[in-house]
Amino acid sequence: MLSELNRNLHEQIRSIYAIRSSLSLHGWDQECKMPLGGGSTRAYVMSELAGVLHKTMTDSDFLLKLEIGIKEAEPLSEWHACLVAMQRDCVRKQRIPLDLDKSLVHAASLAQQAWVEARQHGDAQKFLPMFRQLVHLKREEAQCLVAPGQSLYEALLQTYEPGMTLAALEPVFDELEQGLTSIVEELRASNRLQPPPPFPGTFPKAKQAQFLHDLLPRIGFEMSRGRLDESAHPFTEAMNRNDVRLTVRYQEDNLLDAYFSLLHEGGHGLYEQGFLDEWNLTPMAEAVSLGVHESQSRFWENCIGRSREYWEGEYPLLQQYFPEALGSLNLDAFLLRVRAVHPSPIRVQADEVTYNLHILLRFRLERMILEGELGVDDLESAWNNEMQRWFWLTPDHLNEGYLQDVHWAAGLFGYFPTYTLGNLWSAQIREAMIIQFPRYHEMVRDGHFGPIIQWLREKIHQPGRKLSSVELMRSATGMELGAESFLKYLRERYLLPQ
Amino acid sequence: MLSELNRNLHEQIRSIYAIRSSLSLHGWDQECKMPLGGGSTRAYVMSELAGVLHKTMTDSDFLLKLEIGIKEAEPLSEWHACLVAMQRDCVRKQRIPLDLDKSLVHAASLAQQAWVEARQHGDAQKFLPMFRQLVHLKREEAQCLVAPGQSLYEALLQTYEPGMTLAALEPVFDELEQGLTSIVEELRASNRLQPPPPFPGTFPKAKQAQFLHDLLPRIGFEMSRGRLDESAHPFTEAMNRNDVRLTVRYQEDNLLDAYFSLLHEGGHGLYEQGFLDEWNLTPMAEAVSLGVHESQSRFWENCIGRSREYWEGEYPLLQQYFPEALGSLNLDAFLLRVRAVHPSPIRVQADEVTYNLHILLRFRLERMILEGELGVDDLESAWNNEMQRWFWLTPDHLNEGYLQDVHWAAGLFGYFPTYTLGNLWSAQIREAMIIQFPRYHEMVRDGHFGPIIQWLREKIHQPGRKLSSVELMRSATGMELGAESFLKYLRERYLLPQ
Repeated sequence: MLSELNRNLHEQIRSIYAIRSSLSLHGWDQECKMPLGGGSTRAYVMSELAGVLHKTMTDSDFLLKLEIGIKEAEPLSEWHACLVAMQRDCVRKQRIPLDLDKSLVHAASLAQQAWVEARQHGDAQKFLPMFRQLVHLKREEAQCLVAPGQSLYEALLQTYEPGMTLAALEPVFDELEQGLTSIVEELRASNRLQPPPPFPGTFPKAKQAQFLHDLLPRIGFEMSRGRLDESAHPFTEAMNRNDVRLTVRYQEDNLLDAYFSLLHEGGHGLYEQGFLDEWNLTPMAEAVSLGVHESQSRFWENCIGRSREYWEGEYPLLQQYFPEALGSLNLDAFLLRVRAVHPSPIRVQADEVTYNLHILLRFRLERMILEGELGVDDLESAWNNEMQRWFWLTPDHLNEGYLQDVHWAAGLFGYFPTYTLGNLWSAQIREAMIIQFPRYHEMVRDGHFGPIIQWLREKIHQPGRKLSSVELMRSATGMELGAESFLKYLRERYLLPQ
Repeated sequence: MLSELNRNLHEQIRSIYAIRSSLSLHGWDQECKMPLGGGSTRAYVMSELAGVLHKTMTDSDFLLKLEIGIKEAEPLSEWHACLVAMQRDCVRKQRIPLDLDKSLVHAASLAQQAWVEARQHGDAQKFLPMFRQLVHLKREEAQCLVAPGQSLYEALLQTYEPGMTLAALEPVFDELEQGLTSIVEELRASNRLQPPPPFPGTFPKAKQAQFLHDLLPRIGFEMSRGRLDESAHPFTEAMNRNDVRLTVRYQEDNLLDAYFSLLHEGGHGLYEQGFLDEWNLTPMAEAVSLGVHESQSRFWENCIGRSREYWEGEYPLLQQYFPEALGSLNLDAFLLRVRAVHPSPIRVQADEVTYNLHILLRFRLERMILEGELGVDDLESAWNNEMQRWFWLTPDHLNEGYLQDVHWAAGLFGYFPTYTLGNLWSAQIREAMIIQFPRYHEMVRDGHFGPIIQWLREKIHQPGRKLSSVELMRSATGMELGAESFLKYLRERYLLPQ
């Protein structure tokens, strides 16, 4: 039986999350449905909603009630965790002036639209003025949020990975870099860095869409609480646990782009649908961090989706569905395409070996931009230098260079490292599952995902924001943050004979 | 140069319209995209937004500023009209308690979802409990809004047709009923009440969609500021003048359903896109009334779209596009289908002669429901009695009976009569245009719509809410509200030899 105070707090928290949910819908719609001409009004409407959110989250009466509620709540209870997480978000909100908060949402919406235009015209100048303004505002935001001893970058990293420090991150990333470089070297030395051969036929878009719609429920995604659309860049946006939206894009000459995007976004979607209904529209029905979020997508996309056992079960189905393109291709020839490792300019097309090098590159550049060590006008040449150093290539086009990702245009500085955290954690999850389920490989081969989904639900999804990301992963897998599991997994899959 | 006060007022008005715009997006999305399982959370999110809107519109500081602003504004100026319209809406909002306002939005969202379910299962019991609750809340709302001497129904009518009274409406509706009944009698006597013959071929959905997407710009709708989707029931929803969304539905055996829906929704869309950009997100970029809104849709759908001259120009195009279904059908045979008059249980499929009888039926029933003279449990039998009396038929199914329209499920009591007002005004607009443009018929035949669109823009769209609907139509057409033009137009088209 909730007290009057707690009922009141619960109602106000739901109210805050209702506005957040509304902002999510506007974001999804802007990507998927909004006509171009609606852009500037949309930016304004979203900044007004951000203003409403700001006022609600910084209301002094609410903050006082939160304080009392936390003191009265039973320590270690879900309710206590819910209030503490809410308080954390509100305190961070409080440190950002209302006008800055609204300006950030406004500038990010416009910069994203400018980014789309710059990509269409191959003209960075359409993007750079808005981007410069956005970087300026993000620095202001970081200055409001920074704690003693933190760097500006670290302050923004907290938005996506609460509690994470550069001191914890850097040694792991260094170990990872060394390991990845040595794997790439070994593949290069044995002439195994090869782009995938093209498919001998095509995959009609409508058939791809049908297949993927049917695939989603098989991995546990409920279509009654979600949907699948097409967009220029695949993403997942959840309004709340009961309305989770995934997007993919289709290439008719290559099924794998959409297929692996679907497994990836499906993994994100399972997380969002997996919170407990009783906590809907509260921090307890919210991802603990983006790193953990990415661990869910990469677990399905890579750990499961690029395993031989998965395709032993799945490939015959796929062959039947696309006889023209796949009829003449045996499983090994198909796996050659699924697991080709080769340097590529594009992050989202990168294989799982080189992928994290793309992230490390961005991680370093965005720190320099935010700390004022790299001007936005010098970004292109800095980018190209790094691409040469890591991948021995120069992008042909801006859209394959620093304009390839929307993140910076959306103001998401500090977001990229969470991708790598997700990869590291996904391998730890796989390792823990193999211990837990002696028949793990057969379950994957047979598409018998029930126990796997149940494990993820209980250990990762349902706890919401009760623990920090590092604590959650420790409790789920028994392991500390590190690169070891991931490197071992890659070496097994890519260096040992299969 | 705006004063500080006026700048402030303008910003606050835009802020209010930003929340309204956000509610529109949620409504559109609920109809077109939302997964079923997202329904109850959506209802909650919308009621929270309604709460934000309520608080913003009833803020005493804002209302005080509005008062001063109106006194200071130049009488008869656009700015004065903008403030007066805003004040009217705020004062009405003030009369409805916050909790009731939120409950209304919540109940309407749920009742609409229950309506969808009841239709799916052919089971009124899935709808009636939610509907009863909604009627109860609408009566409460009416009691808050009712002015001395007004009926409850009249109080709600003001929401959609500000300034309209039953005293003005009823004699016009009576005249209309007499006129329509006599036209129907004459057609019946000469055996000309005949359903349209089926088409000799089909119209593939994808081709229909392509044709209609191409048609929209030809009637002046800008695709860069709007979009066209498919939904169970055609509608138009504008987020603002720069983001106007139309929907139609496709029937492969009958192109006319989608085609005329498109002209209809296109007319609504032109109105929404036609406001001046400088007034975007204010009452001056908002329809003066739903009656005037409907005059725009019916002008395109019927006055233009069912005229012989329109099809003289358009039909060859259509025949070329759908040779299988239309190749063997000459213009007269096609017009027979476009203009078939016959009693039908379904309002949205009704011809333009019997259409307003459907409205009069609903107008009478909804008054009785709202005034407490008819219980929701007795609605079905009352409906069926009226259908017998007017159309000599009984609906086969609830979905062809009182569950056919979403309006009552959405709480839109007092909305239906605006459809008939729109029909009456559309005929007056046509009459005024024929006087204004001696070559009107040729313009329509040649698809030379520029001057017609310009006339509508200047006389109807751009004034926003500066005048009342009756004043606006008087200033545009020189005519008073009445049924004469409409009846004359129907008699010419349906009783005279063509």
